[in-house]
Amino acid sequence: MIRGRFITLEGIEGAGKSSLQRHIADALVARGQRICATREPGGTPLAEDIRALVLRRRDEGMPAAAELLLMFASRAAHVAQLIRPALARGEWVICDRFTDASRAYQGGGRGLDTSAIESLARLAHPGLTPDLTLLLDLPPELGLQRARSRQDAGDRFEDEELAFFARVRAHYLQLAEREPGRIRIIDASQPPEAVLEQALTHVEAL
Amino acid sequence: MIRGRFITLEGIEGAGKSSLQRHIADALVARGQRICATREPGGTPLAEDIRALVLRRRDEGMPAAAELLLMFASRAAHVAQLIRPALARGEWVICDRFTDASRAYQGGGRGLDTSAIESLARLAHPGLTPDLTLLLDLPPELGLQRARSRQDAGDRFEDEELAFFARVRAHYLQLAEREPGRIRIIDASQPPEAVLEQALTHVEAL
Repeated sequence: MIRGRFITLEGIEGAGKSSLQRHIADALVARGQRICATREPGGTPLAEDIRALVLRRRDEGMPAAAELLLMFASRAAHVAQLIRPALARGEWVICDRFTDASRAYQGGGRGLDTSAIESLARLAHPGLTPDLTLLLDLPPELGLQRARSRQDAGDRFEDEELAFFARVRAHYLQLAEREPGRIRIIDASQPPEAVLEQALTHVEAL
Repeated sequence: MIRGRFITLEGIEGAGKSSLQRHIADALVARGQRICATREPGGTPLAEDIRALVLRRRDEGMPAAAELLLMFASRAAHVAQLIRPALARGEWVICDRFTDASRAYQGGGRGLDTSAIESLARLAHPGLTPDLTLLLDLPPELGLQRARSRQDAGDRFEDEELAFFARVRAHYLQLAEREPGRIRIIDASQPPEAVLEQALTHVEAL
């Protein structure tokens, strides 16, 4: 059975995931590989509608459990309707964030129960784990500075305090320690060329 | 600690939940009880936004796991932001559908794993179970005939086939068999006055 590879990019705001995604996609396409570049939350019409709900600022706030469930609802649609079909066609899927983001943000950042998160992962994408996860690691001060210098209005997550992103980063690093074969840490405070070079080395290895 | 009562109304399309809800609310208000009448999916701004997503017809369809997760995301918001505060103020909450609907529709109707549904219930509303659930039972043929005679465009669920609603009804009846103290079955094919009279007898008992 032909099956593509599933690569996910993780890291806090301002780590440079989006531009790295474009560069990896270009490099793969240049060697004739068919790819599917996508993102979470989002990637399908329903999942993008959920993304809009979950990122929008709300006066009444959003309970952490509702946020977690929305993330996995969008993921269930994304996996069933985009990611699995693309992998089955032999495409390489490059996804900006996946379940590790829920582990780090809703588990590490919001303190939700990690076993509940693993149950949701089994429900939303049974049997599917990324082949490679690139964790773009950098200090939250630097990430937020970069993210907030963008010409957009930001989102509900960017309103969080530094301590939140410090917990998210620490949780990401713990995940990488637990699964060193799958999750590769890249120092995202380096110049973009160095980040891309390291990323491509890991992608080549697939 | 003052705590109101939590009453849920369940049943398939066309069972008469909405008008029964109005009549129960009127009867409680008439005796000076403060009430909160609400519905699922929905009941808060976020939960109503999720309701719109989950009921809308989509060309690409909706994976069952995504539907289930959206239902519980709206429920988590609804419970935290409306139901628990109302109960804490001593109000009686009368809710059109709750977790039994997820058990019956996504479990019975769609065949999703019932233990996954129970995990979601623990995540979305730990420690909260209705004090009384009125199950308006009627044959799906009759319910759908009533629902489709309404002057609206219906929703994604009303497009399902009769066999789907037969599974939902059967699952509701199983739930009632398992929890006869909480879930009271009312024959919804009776005239509305008889349904209301039986419903109020159960409500009085609280």
